[in-house]
Amino acid sequence: MQKGALCYEGKAKKLYTTDDPQLLWVAYKDEATAFNGEKHAILQGKARLNNEISSMIFTTLAEKGCPSHFVRKLSATEQLVKRVTIIPLEVIVRNKVAGSLAHRLGLKEGMQLAEPLVEFCYKDDSLGDPLVTEDHIAILAAASQAEVARMKEQALRVNELLSSLFARLGVILVDFKLEFGKTETGALLLADEISPDTCRLWDEKTGARLDKDLFRHELGNLQEGYEEILARLSTSSS
Amino acid sequence: MQKGALCYEGKAKKLYTTDDPQLLWVAYKDEATAFNGEKHAILQGKARLNNEISSMIFTTLAEKGCPSHFVRKLSATEQLVKRVTIIPLEVIVRNKVAGSLAHRLGLKEGMQLAEPLVEFCYKDDSLGDPLVTEDHIAILAAASQAEVARMKEQALRVNELLSSLFARLGVILVDFKLEFGKTETGALLLADEISPDTCRLWDEKTGARLDKDLFRHELGNLQEGYEEILARLSTSSS
Ligand SMILES: Nc1ncnc2c1ncn2[C@@H]1O[C@H](COP(=O)(O)OP(=O)(O)O)[C@@H](O)[C@H]1O
Ligand SMILES: Nc1ncnc2c1ncn2[C@@H]1O[C@H](COP(=O)(O)OP(=O)(O)O)[C@@H](O)[C@H]1O
Ligand SMILES: [Mg+2]
Ligand SMILES: [Mg+2]
Repeated sequence: MQKGALCYEGKAKKLYTTDDPQLLWVAYKDEATAFNGEKHAILQGKARLNNEISSMIFTTLAEKGCPSHFVRKLSATEQLVKRVTIIPLEVIVRNKVAGSLAHRLGLKEGMQLAEPLVEFCYKDDSLGDPLVTEDHIAILAAASQAEVARMKEQALRVNELLSSLFARLGVILVDFKLEFGKTETGALLLADEISPDTCRLWDEKTGARLDKDLFRHELGNLQEGYEEILARLSTSSS
Repeated sequence: MQKGALCYEGKAKKLYTTDDPQLLWVAYKDEATAFNGEKHAILQGKARLNNEISSMIFTTLAEKGCPSHFVRKLSATEQLVKRVTIIPLEVIVRNKVAGSLAHRLGLKEGMQLAEPLVEFCYKDDSLGDPLVTEDHIAILAAASQAEVARMKEQALRVNELLSSLFARLGVILVDFKLEFGKTETGALLLADEISPDTCRLWDEKTGARLDKDLFRHELGNLQEGYEEILARLSTSSS
């Protein structure tokens, strides 16, 4: 597999073409951003941690019948994925109240939700990724009604699988964000990353944050938290 | 009917008890606020204009089979209404893109929507009345699923009736906000007010704003716009 031209640089990853037009080479970056880019830092080791964790999670999901764009790990910080056209929606699943849900609705952080909540945000940095309803999604032509239904279904399935995976590791999956894309044939495919950058992960016993909130709210060393997640995932899969 | 004690003072109206515990005495105020109270002014005549307009609109809706809390006009600035427990949701119906919909989603002001859009916002000034999905409404226990469905249905019916009423007067009903409440017996009832404070009304020919945007964005004299709406409504009903 040959690494080709840089085709997109985001806040957390660089995407390169490969000799196969269906595949992309993803290089994770040692960068952390928060609050829509307002807060920014270089955090040595983050690229490796997220690439390892994301690879392990996508592998586990595939084993449980939940496919994604992930093809294989290429190096400590890089992975090969299927190229998709990203649907401009962030699909958020929440088990407990945290972050924007707490702030927007005045709910208590940590409150258990009676059932998992799925939210859609319109993926547009200049608008601050606003929350949207299914009617807004239709107006924006961001996805079809059938796609919205399937993303919701798949997101809830991912939640079931990851919630029990993390529970076995003494970690509470509070919430997470997914992105989906469409392949050339129009099939919906789970894409992007699943990592402590895109999940809220709380230690079951201590309540310690093991995710990007460490950086967002300066609660501790980000790499130590991510390293802890990687270590626990590694025991479980060995 | 005796006017009793002040029981609530809002930004636009004062509510008083009456000798009938089921009825409230509403006194409209000559006050205008915008942007969650940031902008504020006393505008002579506004109380009369909104009371007259709201009374006429509620009367027309009742004639068309759409009941509300409105009982009768008491004076130029006052009206008698049925007391309800307000559901803490603002029900917004939109025919064209304007205001927060334009800003939040980056859509062009004035864009015609393929079909009327219904949005729910959680009525909480301290949170800035955030947009909510039906799942959020369930978490907040703001209303039952059946109530949400009925509010949506009734809001769309009000939209049909008011859109054609205003169209006959050369006015485009761009969007509006409704509030619903529950009577002692648990019945859902359209409440609050329907006035140029709670509707966006554009002159069909000139595009002139005839609503609170005159005040919000300093586009002209508020009272002149409201007077124009009242005058046109008065011709139609005579
Ligand atoms: N399989 C894929 N094919 C094409 N684009 C993808 C794929 N997976 C993720 N992306 C996109 O790669 C971009 C880079 O990721 P990232 O650095 O996280 O970006 P962002 O700054 O938008 O968060 C994102 O726009 C993401 O949606
Ligand atoms: N029929 C009713 N019974 C009880 N409360 C009502 C009724 N109609 C409207 N209200 C409430 O009256 C209050 C005063 O109105 P207003 O001045 O517009 O308040 P706000 O500052 O919340 O916009 C609002 O909280 C509104 O929800
Ligand atoms: Mg990203
Ligand atoms: Mg009001």
